[in-house]
Amino acid sequence: MFQEFTSRSAPENGPPRLAALREGLSREGLSGFIVPRADAHQGEYVADCDARLAWLTGFTGSAGFCIALMDRAGVFVDGRYRVQVRAEVDPRSFTPVDWPEVKAGVWLKSALPQGGRVGFDPWLHTSAEIAEIEAALTGTGITLEPVDHNPIDAIWTDRPAPPMAPARVHPAALSGKTSGDKRAALAEGLKARGVRAAVLTLPDSICWLLNIRGADLARNPLMQGFAVLHDTGHLTLYAEAAKFDAETHAHLGNEVTLRPVSAFAPGLRSLTGPVLVDPASAPVQVSRELSEEGIAVFTAQDPCLLPKARKNAAEVAGMDAAHQRDAVAMAEFLAWLDTEAPKGDLTEIDVVKRLEAFRAATGCLTDISFDTICGAGPHGAIVHYRVTEATNRRVIPGELLLVDSGAQYPNGTTDITRTVAVGAVPPEARAPFTRVLQGMIAISRARWPRGLAGRDLDALARAPLWAAGCDYDHGTGHGVGAAMCVHEGPARLSRVSMVPLEEGMILSNEPGYYREGAFGIRIENLVLVEAAPAMGDNRDQLAFRTLTWVPIDRRLIDADMLSPAERDWIDTYHAEVLARVGEAVSPATRDWLQAACAAL
Amino acid sequence: MFQEFTSRSAPENGPPRLAALREGLSREGLSGFIVPRADAHQGEYVADCDARLAWLTGFTGSAGFCIALMDRAGVFVDGRYRVQVRAEVDPRSFTPVDWPEVKAGVWLKSALPQGGRVGFDPWLHTSAEIAEIEAALTGTGITLEPVDHNPIDAIWTDRPAPPMAPARVHPAALSGKTSGDKRAALAEGLKARGVRAAVLTLPDSICWLLNIRGADLARNPLMQGFAVLHDTGHLTLYAEAAKFDAETHAHLGNEVTLRPVSAFAPGLRSLTGPVLVDPASAPVQVSRELSEEGIAVFTAQDPCLLPKARKNAAEVAGMDAAHQRDAVAMAEFLAWLDTEAPKGDLTEIDVVKRLEAFRAATGCLTDISFDTICGAGPHGAIVHYRVTEATNRRVIPGELLLVDSGAQYPNGTTDITRTVAVGAVPPEARAPFTRVLQGMIAISRARWPRGLAGRDLDALARAPLWAAGCDYDHGTGHGVGAAMCVHEGPARLSRVSMVPLEEGMILSNEPGYYREGAFGIRIENLVLVEAAPAMGDNRDQLAFRTLTWVPIDRRLIDADMLSPAERDWIDTYHAEVLARVGEAVSPATRDWLQAACAAL
Repeated sequence: MFQEFTSRSAPENGPPRLAALREGLSREGLSGFIVPRADAHQGEYVADCDARLAWLTGFTGSAGFCIALMDRAGVFVDGRYRVQVRAEVDPRSFTPVDWPEVKAGVWLKSALPQGGRVGFDPWLHTSAEIAEIEAALTGTGITLEPVDHNPIDAIWTDRPAPPMAPARVHPAALSGKTSGDKRAALAEGLKARGVRAAVLTLPDSICWLLNIRGADLARNPLMQGFAVLHDTGHLTLYAEAAKFDAETHAHLGNEVTLRPVSAFAPGLRSLTGPVLVDPASAPVQVSRELSEEGIAVFTAQDPCLLPKARKNAAEVAGMDAAHQRDAVAMAEFLAWLDTEAPKGDLTEIDVVKRLEAFRAATGCLTDISFDTICGAGPHGAIVHYRVTEATNRRVIPGELLLVDSGAQYPNGTTDITRTVAVGAVPPEARAPFTRVLQGMIAISRARWPRGLAGRDLDALARAPLWAAGCDYDHGTGHGVGAAMCVHEGPARLSRVSMVPLEEGMILSNEPGYYREGAFGIRIENLVLVEAAPAMGDNRDQLAFRTLTWVPIDRRLIDADMLSPAERDWIDTYHAEVLARVGEAVSPATRDWLQAACAAL
Repeated sequence: MFQEFTSRSAPENGPPRLAALREGLSREGLSGFIVPRADAHQGEYVADCDARLAWLTGFTGSAGFCIALMDRAGVFVDGRYRVQVRAEVDPRSFTPVDWPEVKAGVWLKSALPQGGRVGFDPWLHTSAEIAEIEAALTGTGITLEPVDHNPIDAIWTDRPAPPMAPARVHPAALSGKTSGDKRAALAEGLKARGVRAAVLTLPDSICWLLNIRGADLARNPLMQGFAVLHDTGHLTLYAEAAKFDAETHAHLGNEVTLRPVSAFAPGLRSLTGPVLVDPASAPVQVSRELSEEGIAVFTAQDPCLLPKARKNAAEVAGMDAAHQRDAVAMAEFLAWLDTEAPKGDLTEIDVVKRLEAFRAATGCLTDISFDTICGAGPHGAIVHYRVTEATNRRVIPGELLLVDSGAQYPNGTTDITRTVAVGAVPPEARAPFTRVLQGMIAISRARWPRGLAGRDLDALARAPLWAAGCDYDHGTGHGVGAAMCVHEGPARLSRVSMVPLEEGMILSNEPGYYREGAFGIRIENLVLVEAAPAMGDNRDQLAFRTLTWVPIDRRLIDADMLSPAERDWIDTYHAEVLARVGEAVSPATRDWLQAACAAL
């Protein structure tokens, strides 16, 4: 069982740890210190040894930071975590701050009126982050100062060891392109820009480039490390040698030099510039090491991001196969749920466990791709709800149940949300469910001229809800990796995303609707960007192809609200679900599936 | 009759005029000269005395420019004019250039490989334009040089006099805010930014600010001139005194100083900086005058643009009344057309004349708001078709007729497109007509969270066409002035518009579909941005309110393609057309209207 249900927070540890931190800061003459959620790799998940924010404050959310001053400590969290933070931190020591509405620089200005020196660990912040805070502090006399030794680590006496999971080869049949070919192509790009080397600090970039995977972090098949790609195609990998056995070593080959992580900073100082650094993801310290040696820094996006996002045919085939396997597990799960849940005896944790068991029964589950969000009734309205023993709720007939989950298989990553009626359909949920479905269908059906970004399409998913005075306060979709992170840049389906959608990108399509205290609705499929099939005037258009084949609860659809094209889409989708999955499920599930996939 | 149908172009005049221009350039030691369509006010229409591009080349389109070199002369036109330019210029002297695909700087680089001095009139180009060309010329040795005297004017011996139409007062009941109050509000804005004065070069900005209108240009109720708004609220108006009678003089009041246009440049040189200049609309010469005197230039958007675009209640009331009047004229016109056109005897010019006559019969028509686009059959596929005696075509039963037209009334400006079947409905037109209608309805029904721009909504209008592999190659809508220019910035419904939509903005909503050689479809209403009525979760949303009340040809709609909500919109719209217009039309037209407005 991958998912666990204990509360990870220990609010009572916060005050003494904060006191110890302040002692350390006093000794250094600092007025405060910034403790981010991030590690040096800026991912969504951190290893236990890097969970400094949770260790200090108790707050376990996936984003945020604390600024600890001598007289106060602000815990900056976004809209997803405004409720959770209050349960997880001791309010006598920590003050939640609404972020990004209140920016760090603005808060510091009001908290430190007479100036001051605020420390930060330059391995844990990007240049972009620090520059933004510093811009707000212009003229205040308050300075941000990088520290050589993290004062949290100095007082965290039982800090866990760094992860040391074995790396494994991601086979050529799944990667579709050798690491050598990928590195040669990127090296050509570097040369064309007059750049001698590129610093890579994102584990998913490095794993993609080397065709390896790992298990250093929960939910993400990643090997942690740093790398420098030279314009010759040679790569220096900074990662612990113990992670590599003979097979992975041989896979890396002669053109990859393996060095320990401790050699990364000295390695940077020995480079010849210009050196490409991504200010949005690289630690400040990377640029500092280079600049101190007089090595020119070329700021640009991590060159792996776009080629990694544009999945090739082998990656798409792996994702298709993973989705086929996952669809079978989901069908078995939904059939089971539809039988058991109306009896009224299940809890959210029961549901999560059973779902993971159905996926584990495939024999291929290497991890879940994120902690399953399983929200019954009003819990469904908490967008990032994670059930614990403390919050666990019975699944009550007559309510909705929202289940957002995914799997990591060796050949692909899945992410799917279904919202189902438990027994009788709550009548007030049918219209909003149908509107969410209409938005989800609008994205599924979309064709558009090449060059558009997520921003240009986002309204299609929301217009049916907008028309009823409703909306949802999250993006419509995120990029998804191929046997990689379930959240992957750079493209998104979002009002703020200006990155053009390109063939091979895989995104989630997940509009929702949330009525606080009552229910939540979300319907999510993954979709692949492809050249649109020739039609009409044969314009150069792109379109989405759906990867996810799992029934959508017909009982919650008000068919009278649908257009002929929408109705046709749902019927065609269900027919294809049945055709793809029907032969692979148990006989009982097949009967259930036939009914679940009937035309409206 | 405002519209005329003669061809305005005289291609045979081009070669001798080009030869004369080249002689003049030789004397000045110039290798070439840029002749823009624009005058010093950068509007869409120019006075006859400013139509230098048409005079030199024969090309009469509303945008473009010529670069005349010694061995070639390129006429740069955009996609709308690629066909027209070939009919209007002598190909032995002038070479059409596809613009903006080919930029001026790039073309110059290839045409003048060994460097050269290219002149331009600094009153006729914005700083932004010149900077863009110069950027492309970096390192080529080619320079752009402002000339003191326009060499076209030197050889244009029978150049018409500048327009001298009388200005008139735009009454308070229509403007809704006194000029003094407008100037005081803008002056506060200047002071808040530390700016001492703002240069205004756009006639619509000046006329809006002073609550005056004029007739210096066709189709636009504008008085041409320049102005400087001081941070005291005082305004210096540079315009010919002969345009102002006692009433308009009194209206301007003591806080407006009237000076001749010839005093504008010296006036600039006497200012105290910083002086606000809009690089997107002010002539280069404005910044040159200031800089030569050491006066600081503050670059920012013309401060009139946003308040002018946000119509107040009085302006909206005027627009509503103008649209009510125009709807009556349009209903009479469409009823007449539906009776006469199927007989097969009408030409496009007949239709245009009759439409203008119906508008003139209101007794209030001060101008048409642009030359009516009346395209029968394949002419409908020419997006900016202007019928002349030479192109005039019979309106043939069984074809579509596209009529895009508008009126200038004292209280408002209209712009409406209807596409109608002439007699029998061409069956191949129903599906595309319905898709265009669905896009137009999607915009009409849209509600959206405050803060979105045209870019965020554009896909709603196109998605039904995209779904069939189709699209249209123009924006979805443009801003419209209140008793002002029919094309008004800064907001648009367009993929390239990042300007947030705000309450009071009026825009056109005009998706289309064009099948070359066969037919064109466009359906256009004007819409007003308002706070959305409370509904659903009572989010802070904006919505469009429709201003245009004219039937949409029901015979062309395939009702089976519509969603229940779309069908409801069209039936509700037609019921409201009948309720608003039915009592005001002739009895015969009332009968026609009742049938035209029946539920689907």
